[in-house]
Amino acid sequence: MQATILTIGDEILIGQIVDTNSVSISKHLNRAGIVVRERLSIGDDREQIVQSVERSLEKSHILIITGGLGPTKDDITKKTLCDLFGGELRYDEAVGEHVRTMLEKRGVVFNELNRGQALVPDCCTVLFNRHGTAPGMWFEREGRVVISLPGVPFEMEHLMEEEVMPRLKACFSLRSIVHRTLITSGLAESMLAERIAPWEDALPDYLKLAYLPNPGAVRLRLSAYEVEGESVAREIEARFAQLQKMIPEYVVGYETATVQELIHHTLIERGKTLSVAESCSGGRIASLFTAMPGASAYFMGSVVAYQNRIKERLLGVSAVSLARHGAVSEEVVRQMAEGARNCFGTDYAIATSGIAGPSGGSKEKPVGTVWMAVATPTHTVALCRQCGTDRGQIIDRASAYAIALLRDELKEDLK
Amino acid sequence: MQATILTIGDEILIGQIVDTNSVSISKHLNRAGIVVRERLSIGDDREQIVQSVERSLEKSHILIITGGLGPTKDDITKKTLCDLFGGELRYDEAVGEHVRTMLEKRGVVFNELNRGQALVPDCCTVLFNRHGTAPGMWFEREGRVVISLPGVPFEMEHLMEEEVMPRLKACFSLRSIVHRTLITSGLAESMLAERIAPWEDALPDYLKLAYLPNPGAVRLRLSAYEVEGESVAREIEARFAQLQKMIPEYVVGYETATVQELIHHTLIERGKTLSVAESCSGGRIASLFTAMPGASAYFMGSVVAYQNRIKERLLGVSAVSLARHGAVSEEVVRQMAEGARNCFGTDYAIATSGIAGPSGGSKEKPVGTVWMAVATPTHTVALCRQCGTDRGQIIDRASAYAIALLRDELKEDLK
Repeated sequence: MQATILTIGDEILIGQIVDTNSVSISKHLNRAGIVVRERLSIGDDREQIVQSVERSLEKSHILIITGGLGPTKDDITKKTLCDLFGGELRYDEAVGEHVRTMLEKRGVVFNELNRGQALVPDCCTVLFNRHGTAPGMWFEREGRVVISLPGVPFEMEHLMEEEVMPRLKACFSLRSIVHRTLITSGLAESMLAERIAPWEDALPDYLKLAYLPNPGAVRLRLSAYEVEGESVAREIEARFAQLQKMIPEYVVGYETATVQELIHHTLIERGKTLSVAESCSGGRIASLFTAMPGASAYFMGSVVAYQNRIKERLLGVSAVSLARHGAVSEEVVRQMAEGARNCFGTDYAIATSGIAGPSGGSKEKPVGTVWMAVATPTHTVALCRQCGTDRGQIIDRASAYAIALLRDELKEDLK
Repeated sequence: MQATILTIGDEILIGQIVDTNSVSISKHLNRAGIVVRERLSIGDDREQIVQSVERSLEKSHILIITGGLGPTKDDITKKTLCDLFGGELRYDEAVGEHVRTMLEKRGVVFNELNRGQALVPDCCTVLFNRHGTAPGMWFEREGRVVISLPGVPFEMEHLMEEEVMPRLKACFSLRSIVHRTLITSGLAESMLAERIAPWEDALPDYLKLAYLPNPGAVRLRLSAYEVEGESVAREIEARFAQLQKMIPEYVVGYETATVQELIHHTLIERGKTLSVAESCSGGRIASLFTAMPGASAYFMGSVVAYQNRIKERLLGVSAVSLARHGAVSEEVVRQMAEGARNCFGTDYAIATSGIAGPSGGSKEKPVGTVWMAVATPTHTVALCRQCGTDRGQIIDRASAYAIALLRDELKEDLK
């Protein structure tokens, strides 16, 4: 079963927003065994919407559209789909009452534009949007389905989960998609490929291998699309097990778990705690951990110390070390990690200190130089890495490498 | 001049990564006056790549492709484009030497797969990638251009800036795209639309108005595509000035600046400083500020206080208040903001305390309840907002609303 995802809005084409809707719709469809064939973004243009819908339905059974359902004139998706499917817009009492109630709670007067949000094509099934004012719509034609959802990410997300996926599962007979991902660390992509070449060459045609390099890790994803039967499932597992046996020393995790997710589960399992002292990573490491539900079980907190006197006062870094070696140095980053561990009373602590740029670099310590450290109950390790040239990239990589350093320490402790 | 952006990789279609490349390519093209007609994502599939390239060239003069240029077998873009444009792969000495040098620095042995990265089609111009191992490629056919770039974001970014944009500007005669964005706060989208309806109805056809609602702000974007001449530029400015005059009390900023960018510039201009005390936002507010170059001029630091005893020890929150009102309360969040202001010695401080979920909610304080405060040199303000039901959404909104609260205070101070 194949699907196309279409996102509508000029703001996507001029780069004003990042399209995260397509990502979560893709995940939903994949989990249900529906193959996403193509993702498409176009502007709020009637002719282009019509052409894209027609073309998508030639190749896909399912088309999911987001965006263009707001109350204002630039939003034309509903009217265009209504015409395309040969219907008329009718006022829906239930939707109207819901919009009125939602707006009243926010102190907004229900006006003609809001009334327009309760107009729905009489040729579709309304998907009730309890989290927002724009209803979803389900159209059918010759066994193919077109679904239109609001562009607000969490409204779309709820409608996908509560309305769209149950209906798609009832409507179509779906097969499985299997993805198994192995996370490796310590071997470059090309060396990894050389090492597993005999195994890769022997894979059956229906199994696809993908290499996904990231800072600090290379992911190997084995995928089978629209498979059926127990023997196929067993075959995939057997191949995946062979792969692991070829490179056991480089395996650091499974599936799409991020390194912080692996640490999250390990710390919860072992009942250990974590704190962070961040200079150049500026709160990024803390926010990566606190984004995960349940982080409060082990995550005690972070100090973002952008100034030397804060490093001294909150983390107990020595003024002499700061003066002698500078903030971006092994001595200081070690003291920051140990200081965070003491200050928060945790088992482990991560620290970063570097030059995120664009200014502040020197010949000895160019922009991108980052010292990182991890303090454990028994010792402290520190490492200097060159994290790139662009501020965003440096913050991302410094965070990823520092988190990877903790992962390596947690692995050591296991032995 | 119209362009299509094509991103290639199964990882995009299964939702394993977010496509940020399309966003930055869109921005580059827009700034140069090139209209992005469509953005397309497909898998690593030969037939689909060929079809997408052919179809894109029917409607667009320029096609920019990213992805599928790695050294491993799943990457087929280069071979496919080479065949499509009727060329042969040839070893490029300069690229080969560069790849070898880059890998040696990282301690990676140059093998047959890496050698493959230096093979380039003889029917293209090589775009030298000094930040990575996969070269970019520039193909031409009947006055249309196809550009293939690596999928690693910062490599793609450098090639766009240093190679692609200068060549496109030399190759095509480009007109202008003008976007003017007004950031408003305090009026719901539908009420704003009603208010400015007479102005909107009188806009000439070549001016498009878009409404972009966000937590805490609605952006109004006025766009003109491929315009020419001084009189048009004056007309756009005049219309934009009229719009501002209709809703002066709701205007909080201009262009695509985020609220934190507005604050960033204001604090630098006034020589004032900022610190943060974060509970439920978990480092997100600090990382939004520290992501901006130059933040160290005013951003002193943040305490992420996930535990009550940290709130007491580092921020001086009273144990009695914590016991009596709980961490998620007006009293505590006020003390956190004032505590951060004292601890870091700053002019302003932002604080958050809330329930990010999924657990920890109660009937009185359900998941999504967030108290936020801003301490200034003269007073402290606090506010409670319901920030949603999903952890990620709650963290995002709590951060946005708390930052907006500081913006409102900075605005007050101006008077």
